[in-house]
Amino acid sequence: MSNFLPTAPYRGTRDFLPAEMSVRTQVFHALYEVIERYGYGRYDGPILEPVEMYEAKSSREIVEQQLYTMTDRGGRRLALRPEMTPSVARIIAGNAGSLQFPVRWYSHPNCHRYERPQRGRVREHWQVNVDVFGSDSAAAEIEFFELIHDMMAGLGATPDMWVLRVNDRVLLDSMLTDVVGVPAEQVRAVSGLVDRWEKYGADKLAEDAAEIGVSDKQFARLGEVLAAGTAVLDEIPDEAKAQSRLVEVLRDSAASELITYDPLIVRGFDYYTSTVFEVFDQHPDNRRSLFGGGRYENLVGLYSAQRIPGFGFGMGDVTLFDFLDTHGLTPEPRSDVDVVVIPLAEELFGVARRVARSTRAAGVRATTPLDLRKLGKEIQRAVKSGAFAVVIVGPDEVNDGQVIVRDLATGDQRNLEIDRVGPAVAEMRDTHGK
Amino acid sequence: MSNFLPTAPYRGTRDFLPAEMSVRTQVFHALYEVIERYGYGRYDGPILEPVEMYEAKSSREIVEQQLYTMTDRGGRRLALRPEMTPSVARIIAGNAGSLQFPVRWYSHPNCHRYERPQRGRVREHWQVNVDVFGSDSAAAEIEFFELIHDMMAGLGATPDMWVLRVNDRVLLDSMLTDVVGVPAEQVRAVSGLVDRWEKYGADKLAEDAAEIGVSDKQFARLGEVLAAGTAVLDEIPDEAKAQSRLVEVLRDSAASELITYDPLIVRGFDYYTSTVFEVFDQHPDNRRSLFGGGRYENLVGLYSAQRIPGFGFGMGDVTLFDFLDTHGLTPEPRSDVDVVVIPLAEELFGVARRVARSTRAAGVRATTPLDLRKLGKEIQRAVKSGAFAVVIVGPDEVNDGQVIVRDLATGDQRNLEIDRVGPAVAEMRDTHGK
Repeated sequence: MSNFLPTAPYRGTRDFLPAEMSVRTQVFHALYEVIERYGYGRYDGPILEPVEMYEAKSSREIVEQQLYTMTDRGGRRLALRPEMTPSVARIIAGNAGSLQFPVRWYSHPNCHRYERPQRGRVREHWQVNVDVFGSDSAAAEIEFFELIHDMMAGLGATPDMWVLRVNDRVLLDSMLTDVVGVPAEQVRAVSGLVDRWEKYGADKLAEDAAEIGVSDKQFARLGEVLAAGTAVLDEIPDEAKAQSRLVEVLRDSAASELITYDPLIVRGFDYYTSTVFEVFDQHPDNRRSLFGGGRYENLVGLYSAQRIPGFGFGMGDVTLFDFLDTHGLTPEPRSDVDVVVIPLAEELFGVARRVARSTRAAGVRATTPLDLRKLGKEIQRAVKSGAFAVVIVGPDEVNDGQVIVRDLATGDQRNLEIDRVGPAVAEMRDTHGK
Repeated sequence: MSNFLPTAPYRGTRDFLPAEMSVRTQVFHALYEVIERYGYGRYDGPILEPVEMYEAKSSREIVEQQLYTMTDRGGRRLALRPEMTPSVARIIAGNAGSLQFPVRWYSHPNCHRYERPQRGRVREHWQVNVDVFGSDSAAAEIEFFELIHDMMAGLGATPDMWVLRVNDRVLLDSMLTDVVGVPAEQVRAVSGLVDRWEKYGADKLAEDAAEIGVSDKQFARLGEVLAAGTAVLDEIPDEAKAQSRLVEVLRDSAASELITYDPLIVRGFDYYTSTVFEVFDQHPDNRRSLFGGGRYENLVGLYSAQRIPGFGFGMGDVTLFDFLDTHGLTPEPRSDVDVVVIPLAEELFGVARRVARSTRAAGVRATTPLDLRKLGKEIQRAVKSGAFAVVIVGPDEVNDGQVIVRDLATGDQRNLEIDRVGPAVAEMRDTHGK
């Protein structure tokens, strides 16, 4: 027995059987539909990318600890993409001459990170990425906030279930420098501290602050300011606010209702330069960040001299499914078949196939058994597979050019001319609401 | 300049911009639809699999020359899947206890092979895989032949464009042993020779035959037999034919019309044990195998003691797109937007967003500009993006609660109450047949 290979997928990756895949497909198709209504076109790129792309721009944690790398037979160093942003920046830069900006694009890649598998973390995850390229306008921010609201609604979520918390790196820097009095050279390190504010206890934060060189007085002031929420805005100088797109959004009465300004939002990635946001689950059992994104001043600088600003986010499937499960929003798997056409004898398999063909031509999913079984057994199997009807192909009926159609929900059955089966089961399907 | 990273994708892989992705999506959705009408459920699995899976079962060429491998930080040897069959065998074996056989599954994975890129060959390709597990019956063969005909029709191909050539390893072995007189220990090597029959010239074949140890007389006889086509069947002993599912299929008058028996079809993979087939393009410019598959006696033997026979095939995107291009069947890319809502002043962006929202609520894809441009310019851009209408949001009309809707095909325009825009453009879309 010990000679058999293991059947479990590689640690941190997942198999999706049809029932699970059906759920995944339903959820992501709902998202695709919303995103496409906003005029975003879907793109795709290779899983393998040159390692240099990530060494140049991704976070150190990703490159040093989480990247899956290999060397090909030609000596090229390659990585499995850990995120889609560097790839889309590469593609945009390479095609900038023929694109009409602003470019609205989305994708649904799988990304790999070497992590210790735990709740919300896997090694291969699927991520919806949505980006706009080529506009500096705060109108991009507003479009994304509207889009996110529609995406969440498309998943069945009501506004009480989640919150869109937004900050601006410009405001964050000014808050730290002008309001708290952090020296310029400490701003980056203190931003990291703010990013960890909700995850760590007070003692750990104080310890980290001391290590960075933040004085006790500044640390106390930082705590006050972060607790103040929107009131911080009153203390931030007008010159900083004039540069902030977020302030512009907050002044738009319709757009400001979509978001909550929150000085605690930082986002880890280095490439964000202005607006940053995170969507948080509001459920007491799952108060976590679901996804986030932000604005980058120029993401294609690695590839060309042209400046192309953008705004975007990535939404991973694992945290998304945790959210849907927590709120009872996960859709039911759909069955793979509508109708099973059952021949009662070997010599009737050909007729059964013909009936199945006419059923399919009417847009109804049909199977025929591959091996002969007793009718009762076959009907049990059809019920288990989620079919709503069976068509029984018996010798007497076939002699009269007919078959029996049985509704599996009601048990009603009737004889039908073979040619009438397709339209009849199509009508039944509409009645069954499938 | 030389400090910029290259923007081309890794050699042998492809970027899919939205226009290309739209074509890919249309083609594969047409295939999904046909496959699902046959009751097949879609599954998915990880890209990374243990190397041992391929070492155990895939062809030597794949394992030794084509596999992308790496070692993770825990010392596990991993490969990027070069094909889906070992993964689906693993998943089926791991879930056999809870599955109702026959299991009908399909998938659409990307697979990686290290090859020298050339026409029809890339390093990352997308492949539709369709398999049935758990039946020994020739009814599985017939189902697949019908499915393939419907898939090709779903792509817009007519029956003259392609041919489904089928053989049976049982018949092949008997032909070589009983008809040509090849000794048992040479059968495998001579099968390889038959596999190369159409690719190599006569001299090269004779040379290879001599090397294997085939006599001149046997080689001449082999040539005669292979040229005879269906007539070979008359010479194959009844005992061999009785074991052949293909012979059963050929006796079914409806099913036999779907295929062409061809003694030249072998298929390289070791795991095929009985029926094998290949679909060939019939176009004089592209006489190539588009895809193929066959029956395996037991694919899950690596994972469990249970025997699970199956039948399946994989259809790669590169050869498929060559076929579609050759026959003029490649669909046009679809535009990403239906309607552009254009505000004529900064203070009208909010109204434009509201109009776009109502348009989207009616199921019509809408964008609004992010930056203010001249109307003429914006209309040009809308035409270029493939939109069928623009909605012009001007100050005078908005004062009256109205906007202007212009049909970009006809140039007709009319004023409409803001609330009426959604239904009106939905109606226009149906008229435009999008």
